[in-house]
Amino acid sequence: MSIEVIERHESQVRTYCRHFPALFKRAEGSHVFDSQGRRYLDFLAGAGSLNYGHNNPYLREALIGHLNENGICQSLDLYTTAKADFMEAFFDHILAPRNLADYRLQFVGPTGTNAVEAAFKLARKVTGRHQIVAFTRGFHGVSLGALAASAENGKRRAAGQPLNNVLRAPFEGYFGQKVDTIAIIEKFLDDPNSGWEAPAAFVVEVVQGEGGLETASPGWLQRLAALASRLGSLLIIDEIQTGCGRTGDFFAFEASGIKPDLICVSKSISGFGLPMSLLLIRSEHDQWAPGEHNGTFRGSNLSFVTATAAIRHYWLTGDFIGEVRANAVIVRSGLNEIASRHRGVSVVGRGMMLGLRFSTEGRADAVSRACFEQGLIVETCGPHGNTLKLLPPLTTPEALLEEGIEIIARCTALSESRTELLAGAA
Amino acid sequence: MSIEVIERHESQVRTYCRHFPALFKRAEGSHVFDSQGRRYLDFLAGAGSLNYGHNNPYLREALIGHLNENGICQSLDLYTTAKADFMEAFFDHILAPRNLADYRLQFVGPTGTNAVEAAFKLARKVTGRHQIVAFTRGFHGVSLGALAASAENGKRRAAGQPLNNVLRAPFEGYFGQKVDTIAIIEKFLDDPNSGWEAPAAFVVEVVQGEGGLETASPGWLQRLAALASRLGSLLIIDEIQTGCGRTGDFFAFEASGIKPDLICVSKSISGFGLPMSLLLIRSEHDQWAPGEHNGTFRGSNLSFVTATAAIRHYWLTGDFIGEVRANAVIVRSGLNEIASRHRGVSVVGRGMMLGLRFSTEGRADAVSRACFEQGLIVETCGPHGNTLKLLPPLTTPEALLEEGIEIIARCTALSESRTELLAGAA
Amino acid sequence: MSIEVIERHESQVRTYCRHFPALFKRAEGSHVFDSQGRRYLDFLAGAGSLNYGHNNPYLREALIGHLNENGICQSLDLYTTAKADFMEAFFDHILAPRNLADYRLQFVGPTGTNAVEAAFKLARKVTGRHQIVAFTRGFHGVSLGALAASAENGKRRAAGQPLNNVLRAPFEGYFGQKVDTIAIIEKFLDDPNSGWEAPAAFVVEVVQGEGGLETASPGWLQRLAALASRLGSLLIIDEIQTGCGRTGDFFAFEASGIKPDLICVSKSISGFGLPMSLLLIRSEHDQWAPGEHNGTFRGSNLSFVTATAAIRHYWLTGDFIGEVRANAVIVRSGLNEIASRHRGVSVVGRGMMLGLRFSTEGRADAVSRACFEQGLIVETCGPHGNTLKLLPPLTTPEALLEEGIEIIARCTALSESRTELLAGAA
Amino acid sequence: MSIEVIERHESQVRTYCRHFPALFKRAEGSHVFDSQGRRYLDFLAGAGSLNYGHNNPYLREALIGHLNENGICQSLDLYTTAKADFMEAFFDHILAPRNLADYRLQFVGPTGTNAVEAAFKLARKVTGRHQIVAFTRGFHGVSLGALAASAENGKRRAAGQPLNNVLRAPFEGYFGQKVDTIAIIEKFLDDPNSGWEAPAAFVVEVVQGEGGLETASPGWLQRLAALASRLGSLLIIDEIQTGCGRTGDFFAFEASGIKPDLICVSKSISGFGLPMSLLLIRSEHDQWAPGEHNGTFRGSNLSFVTATAAIRHYWLTGDFIGEVRANAVIVRSGLNEIASRHRGVSVVGRGMMLGLRFSTEGRADAVSRACFEQGLIVETCGPHGNTLKLLPPLTTPEALLEEGIEIIARCTALSESRTELLAGAA
Repeated sequence: MSIEVIERHESQVRTYCRHFPALFKRAEGSHVFDSQGRRYLDFLAGAGSLNYGHNNPYLREALIGHLNENGICQSLDLYTTAKADFMEAFFDHILAPRNLADYRLQFVGPTGTNAVEAAFKLARKVTGRHQIVAFTRGFHGVSLGALAASAENGKRRAAGQPLNNVLRAPFEGYFGQKVDTIAIIEKFLDDPNSGWEAPAAFVVEVVQGEGGLETASPGWLQRLAALASRLGSLLIIDEIQTGCGRTGDFFAFEASGIKPDLICVSKSISGFGLPMSLLLIRSEHDQWAPGEHNGTFRGSNLSFVTATAAIRHYWLTGDFIGEVRANAVIVRSGLNEIASRHRGVSVVGRGMMLGLRFSTEGRADAVSRACFEQGLIVETCGPHGNTLKLLPPLTTPEALLEEGIEIIARCTALSESRTELLAGAA
Repeated sequence: MSIEVIERHESQVRTYCRHFPALFKRAEGSHVFDSQGRRYLDFLAGAGSLNYGHNNPYLREALIGHLNENGICQSLDLYTTAKADFMEAFFDHILAPRNLADYRLQFVGPTGTNAVEAAFKLARKVTGRHQIVAFTRGFHGVSLGALAASAENGKRRAAGQPLNNVLRAPFEGYFGQKVDTIAIIEKFLDDPNSGWEAPAAFVVEVVQGEGGLETASPGWLQRLAALASRLGSLLIIDEIQTGCGRTGDFFAFEASGIKPDLICVSKSISGFGLPMSLLLIRSEHDQWAPGEHNGTFRGSNLSFVTATAAIRHYWLTGDFIGEVRANAVIVRSGLNEIASRHRGVSVVGRGMMLGLRFSTEGRADAVSRACFEQGLIVETCGPHGNTLKLLPPLTTPEALLEEGIEIIARCTALSESRTELLAGAA
Repeated sequence: MSIEVIERHESQVRTYCRHFPALFKRAEGSHVFDSQGRRYLDFLAGAGSLNYGHNNPYLREALIGHLNENGICQSLDLYTTAKADFMEAFFDHILAPRNLADYRLQFVGPTGTNAVEAAFKLARKVTGRHQIVAFTRGFHGVSLGALAASAENGKRRAAGQPLNNVLRAPFEGYFGQKVDTIAIIEKFLDDPNSGWEAPAAFVVEVVQGEGGLETASPGWLQRLAALASRLGSLLIIDEIQTGCGRTGDFFAFEASGIKPDLICVSKSISGFGLPMSLLLIRSEHDQWAPGEHNGTFRGSNLSFVTATAAIRHYWLTGDFIGEVRANAVIVRSGLNEIASRHRGVSVVGRGMMLGLRFSTEGRADAVSRACFEQGLIVETCGPHGNTLKLLPPLTTPEALLEEGIEIIARCTALSESRTELLAGAA
Repeated sequence: MSIEVIERHESQVRTYCRHFPALFKRAEGSHVFDSQGRRYLDFLAGAGSLNYGHNNPYLREALIGHLNENGICQSLDLYTTAKADFMEAFFDHILAPRNLADYRLQFVGPTGTNAVEAAFKLARKVTGRHQIVAFTRGFHGVSLGALAASAENGKRRAAGQPLNNVLRAPFEGYFGQKVDTIAIIEKFLDDPNSGWEAPAAFVVEVVQGEGGLETASPGWLQRLAALASRLGSLLIIDEIQTGCGRTGDFFAFEASGIKPDLICVSKSISGFGLPMSLLLIRSEHDQWAPGEHNGTFRGSNLSFVTATAAIRHYWLTGDFIGEVRANAVIVRSGLNEIASRHRGVSVVGRGMMLGLRFSTEGRADAVSRACFEQGLIVETCGPHGNTLKLLPPLTTPEALLEEGIEIIARCTALSESRTELLAGAA
């Protein structure tokens, strides 16, 4: 009955609920429960915004504690103790140990797209240039500036106007493994007669969360960073979906050893699923005038509180990230086995951001739907939705990871039979 | 000491903290407290996002209850019981009684600017046109699409690229009370040879929160709505700062009797200061394809919980809005008295969104700083920051409103002496 | 039969030939002759590009002489004797006597629109700003840059993309004679919160040739020039249609005494109807790098030859411009008499750029068609084509001017009877 | 002395005259003469606008005849006998024999850039799409729309604003002969998640006149045409520099057998160096409304007269184009010999549009300057001006072609000695 209320009054733009049409009520760890008490294993996890699971008890305790003390909830960009605590924790336990002490934090409106908007504006201001180089299959948000850099046609068309001031470059491997896409980009940018000009910035995801889990190698990233540096362009790493441990490091770029000029962080940074978004700025680029980029909800202290709790609980030692990496091995090995049993199925992604790519159009979607019937929430991404994307909470216990993989294995097999049946009938 | 942490690591873009440089820790109702326990009266109130005061007990109770039950925090746009509850309450107690039953709700990324971006995209899609008519002194956010419609030069320059696809129109009274600005706009739009084309939409604030509290009269709004309708353009009312009771109605446009095509709502909609943002769409315009405009934090259930509690506590009867209106009379009368005692000071705004406009440049800022020294937080807005803007929680008791006005009165007097001294010295 | 060849193979874009569907063969002075030998009086005169009449004998002689000597025809921007002669004549007899010695000449691609494109690029380069302020009813050409500044919707729509980087300002009198449009523009530009920014340039026609012969007064131009100067913006005067004596001075702005930063000249500059276009640049703004704006036909020496001949024949003394002014008195007085005899008819324009404005839609067109039947070619302009525009060669003898005016008088009377008949029938 | 007049009063934008600083006076066939009577062999030939040589006697005779009869010079887009004659000749002798009878002619403002502007507008109108795919090293003019498609950075920067609505694609061979650039373009356009959308049109030169004489093979063009057709995009061939016989056919695309949707023609179409420009439109795309794209000098009848004479004299039989091809063999063989004698020198281009590419920066320029000293005018093109471009009149007799090549051979040898000397000194 409550679903009816929503369907009657919510805009047609809604989408996840069309694929997973249950009425959800409670959630704990890697599980969500609908209003009938049915249990679902959640490998969607807020599209990557619940790396520490639903209602993580450490974070929840901190949050309730803050509320009970009448801690401040919303403070714009005023100084608050909750903000200071977060900044200290983030600096001491995230930035400093990674040799990133020289970054400034900009608290932006609490959406990933807002961090991207801020990054583009700052890059244009710092360089005095207009163009942003963005990549095939990239996704950076749907407000106008970020949308211009996003690649998906359906979302781009929704702008209702031409999207401009972006140069589109091929991501690593876009033309197959033999074609060196950095060389292609360099050719364009070193030729005064190519029609490309030196850009304000390059913006790139290390693993393309919406674009089908394409992955940039450390070597490719290093070359991109070197190219940006040579051209006087800024390198923006969009860590919105990859950050906070998802790929096996706090930041996905860590393995490459680069130092991006700007880093966009959001999704799991609050840890609890609360809205929060950050732009990290190498201090030499912090050329904002006061108030040049603002927004009401930059000071969401409940997010600061849970974000601080997440850092203090999970990131003081290497234990947590060690478990993430161990889990990644389990998931990858499970997926490899599935792929080995079926034609036209391959494993993509990195760390705990893995997926199954299906060569048959529609099959990933069929698998996702079948999984849901069996109690597993897992979405698709990529062109034509060809990739089943697993984003379980990083805290998911091994048994649940295996339960999920088993469901996926069954549904993949099932989808093959159906495909064969259809092929036989045709 | 904690302020140092922030100053060392936060971007130069920070701004409110420069004017109110205390380290805040707790807050209740209309008060905030710094880490030393010093009390401040808060007439800034999250820039209008805390209409029901800090840590409103009814809302806080609901929030803690939800957390204790492991209620869902973040759900993308999945169906949840918290969302259904909110929609039902919003429909039954806000929309239906105001004869607005025919609107659909779009949950957008939880920033006001994202609601504006969605509105512009939808208007362009529905009409197949490109241009948006926006007004002098208007402010609609700083992501690229919304920024193009915002008027302030400093923020516009920060785009680092030309801002386009917006036609700029004069707000009511922009050229003085004798010049009919609707007639000016009509002249442009009815002339096939003016260089203006029929727009996708008009976007307007009923009271310009950032632009200096300029106010659109019901008659002017009616004529604007009629013009938009005649041209096949959509009328977007930006209620981000004016909404949720601030001007003496739930929506500021209610007095005019118009039915806007799109309504942007944010700031105080969650009631508790939690990030939340809505676009209300007349159902005939709900032409979105699923997923055309998305965002991770659209499903912030904690916001839904407090938003529902706020509706159920404050909006089932007319009592609350009656008190708001009574408070507005008190504040206006206090400000009128101040204005009557000084040259070059006038009262602007509507409802509980009132301000003092100073004709001497820099004086509003001086008053704001002096107020802060005396324990009152109140900001400025408008061109050259010429207007002291009062946004106390709507729940502020009469005694505290009068305390605040008294401080403003003292500081205004003080600023005059100083100005005279400076004038004498020159 | 030849018309058929054209109609079969020429694009639908053709337009003048639809209103004046004869096959023209020869032309002399103010007359053109069709292939049957029928004579037409030409008050269109190449849309203002034949100020000295068709096949002006002095110019034609110079041209044939050049051809007989194998003088160079096309030279890009190489030095040629024909170019040097023109520059010397233009400098000595046009610029220097008007106190405009400090201008540089840029030879642009031989279309008016190209001069405007060059002017906009240079203004943007010199100021580092993006926006151009253009006026209601303005027309500056249909290549993309110039089109953005042109006001007519039909032509703008043909761009197939949004036209941007232009701020649209009201021309003198646009809101009636009581509204001071310079004050309106100043209000926008002096307000840091209006949404207008200081522009790279203002571009304006002194008499709006396509926009309905609206006329800027000397005082209005002086104030516009002062405003541009105060803002550090360039003032571009588009003299494409008004230049070369048409308004009673060589340049239409002369009466105002201003010194524009950039002046666009084309149409009658070659004198013979040959393509030619110039941008005049105050020397301090000549900040082009070599080759930054180029084009093949900048060096059309046949145009230089006839342009030089025109200067030497008509502009060494004040005799010619004296005759132009006398002719203007004759035409204006004839038109005044027509206007006085009919309701809803008024006289507009300046110098020999005069017209009849009709308040009844379609009537100007009816008069134009009737005139053509009676052997007079005269076109319409303005919104809804409401203005009959007379652009006879400046060399037209008094008797022919009177013949033309008599035809117009007859046809205006005729159109009134028809209108009355129609009104009676309705 | 006359040069001084020019240098004093002409804008700094001038460029060819800086490389060839003589004062030219007369010209015949392949020769120009300066004011001292010095003879120069002209392998620049109006940058390709003098394919039939200077003062071609057949064309000049027709022109003088027209003038003597008071033939119309300028007629806007009215019907004239000169226009009908041209259209008949162009249709009967150029289009029909090439199986291009189904094209309409649009007479645009007489610059190549204007034809390109018209083509883009029409393609956007016909398809309802915004983007134009243009190629690396392409050059299409410097008015704003065409400039967005042009590749050279220096000219692009001069826009003073971002250039948009163009997707940049690699020309044939851009990444070396092994990389299939059509496959690259197809990959982008067939991927719904690449960031590229289906374009309104592709615009391409068969030989890139400014970009360094890169050449598109017939097979590549066929695949591009097929791709455009499959996507519902228009194919625009820019024949401005390649047309009128330059590459060994009337149109450079003829060898490929494709039928472009739109063809831009200018430069040598008048034959005499007079300004003229055409857009050829496949009739199904002729969706212009009357007057949507206009311009004063579209009706330059002197150009029609010489254009008709050129067609009637040179294109009724295959003799002329046969000679052109024979000449092309001579020039190519001469250049091949030069290239064979020097390191880092290669021959590029097609037909009579050939050049020497030098791998050492600055050497092409040195050769050009040395040639000028020896009486040969020949310019450079390409990135860093690395290519010596030979555009002699197509009518140049064999002996003069060999004279020119000999000078180039000498100067190339000379430049090598100098380069070696410099290398030795360094």
